[in-house]
Amino acid sequence: MEFTKMEAAGNDFVVFNGFKYEIKDYEKLALKACDRHFSVGADGILVCEGSDIADIKMIYYNSDGSRGEMCGNGIRCFSKYVYEEGLIDKKIFTVDTLAGIKTIWIETDNENKVKTVKVNMGKPLFRAKDVPVDLNKEKIIEETIDICGEKIVFSSLLVGVPHTVIFVDDIRNIDINELGKKIETHCIFPRKTNVNFVEVVDRDKINIYTWERGAGRTLGCGTGSCASVVIGNIIGKLNNVVNVKTEGGELEVQIGEDLEIYMKGGANRICDGVFLKLT
Amino acid sequence: MEFTKMEAAGNDFVVFNGFKYEIKDYEKLALKACDRHFSVGADGILVCEGSDIADIKMIYYNSDGSRGEMCGNGIRCFSKYVYEEGLIDKKIFTVDTLAGIKTIWIETDNENKVKTVKVNMGKPLFRAKDVPVDLNKEKIIEETIDICGEKIVFSSLLVGVPHTVIFVDDIRNIDINELGKKIETHCIFPRKTNVNFVEVVDRDKINIYTWERGAGRTLGCGTGSCASVVIGNIIGKLNNVVNVKTEGGELEVQIGEDLEIYMKGGANRICDGVFLKLT
Repeated sequence: MEFTKMEAAGNDFVVFNGFKYEIKDYEKLALKACDRHFSVGADGILVCEGSDIADIKMIYYNSDGSRGEMCGNGIRCFSKYVYEEGLIDKKIFTVDTLAGIKTIWIETDNENKVKTVKVNMGKPLFRAKDVPVDLNKEKIIEETIDICGEKIVFSSLLVGVPHTVIFVDDIRNIDINELGKKIETHCIFPRKTNVNFVEVVDRDKINIYTWERGAGRTLGCGTGSCASVVIGNIIGKLNNVVNVKTEGGELEVQIGEDLEIYMKGGANRICDGVFLKLT
Repeated sequence: MEFTKMEAAGNDFVVFNGFKYEIKDYEKLALKACDRHFSVGADGILVCEGSDIADIKMIYYNSDGSRGEMCGNGIRCFSKYVYEEGLIDKKIFTVDTLAGIKTIWIETDNENKVKTVKVNMGKPLFRAKDVPVDLNKEKIIEETIDICGEKIVFSSLLVGVPHTVIFVDDIRNIDINELGKKIETHCIFPRKTNVNFVEVVDRDKINIYTWERGAGRTLGCGTGSCASVVIGNIIGKLNNVVNVKTEGGELEVQIGEDLEIYMKGGANRICDGVFLKLT
């Protein structure tokens, strides 16, 4: 069975062509293909299939065999793959995901290889009960919590998953692991929260260190990058087109007038291969 | 650049054909190819090249770019690869490694695929100053150390690297991480030590949980399996041909009359592939 391994911002995927191979058990395929010692290894699998409601369907499963609704880094890999494989022959197309239909805009180089992929990430939700945050407030913008005696200013919103954004002066002075864990599991977040530590370089540029709910420290998070730029824009620290640098790579986040979020960035094909053992 | 990803006992490698590609910088290739998020990912790389003193040469680099002398699980993958690729056309051959010339015996199935690989692992060294262990004893067989008030019976020897072997009644009752770290870094081991926790099933069968010096908890260790069987044989708990079950897979360890150790086990080809980006 043929595959392509890809990565975007350090988030890696094994991609399969569902038009060529009929995949019956995605969960099993994800568990097998993503094992980092006994197989190729990745954070998840992406499978392309036909769709009745969009140009193509993206099926995404995590390495633990659970189905994922959407994945910002994943859909960039997916879009590059389907365009370069000739499964899609236009530069603006729609992708059917569990989180709804996403529109994709691609830019190509002289060799017709995909340089960047832009995707609409939807609109953020701010109501405390939607995020959710157990605080008696309508929105959670620049509120304060007490973490072991330290007062921390934070904002929370829902961009696919719950995100908390904390602006810091010097990102290297923060104990991300310690603080990330304490905030993630703080009692005011009944469904826990991702935590984004954001350092503003200037109004067009930020650095983010990421703590992900359930996963801990990661190289970066697409929806977290979006959440950080939305909050930075609302509180007046950032413009509405911002270059985001995470530990895994760079992205551009654009905030539309209606608060629709667009994420633009690259993706890389690491290798093409053929599984010899996938049992 | 073509590659094959392989694994033996959960120890995984990216294998390259050095007859086809001239590799100038092994360290860089190992760092690039072994990155688990931005590349294929593995514990190390294996490169086959010609040798003046043996049938073929194995070059082994760890994922951190350091050169490794030898690797018991690696040489099984290497041997399966060179035989199945037709680079070696006999079932007993010699491999030039940094730890000397190793003899390989392979068994094949009906399709001429390699089922098992046997390799001579050399002889153990027992002298305390060779292991090394800072105790005023000639050999370190069934001695006792105090770990936080608990008396632990242990044996230490050198099989390529320092190994400490501890027999336990029920392997699931042991806090491997806690005890492994304390023993590895105990002051009587000036160069630290691998720690093998061994449960005897019967005289022909053991289960091992592995704590590796520098690497922590791993799925298994070829030289540790050899060290465990040698000690078990010497103190009368085990026969001289023993089936070893580690968390990553099974091996057979044979002790010759002159204490020469032989390790026999399988290896798996996971996938063949072509790197698209290795810069």
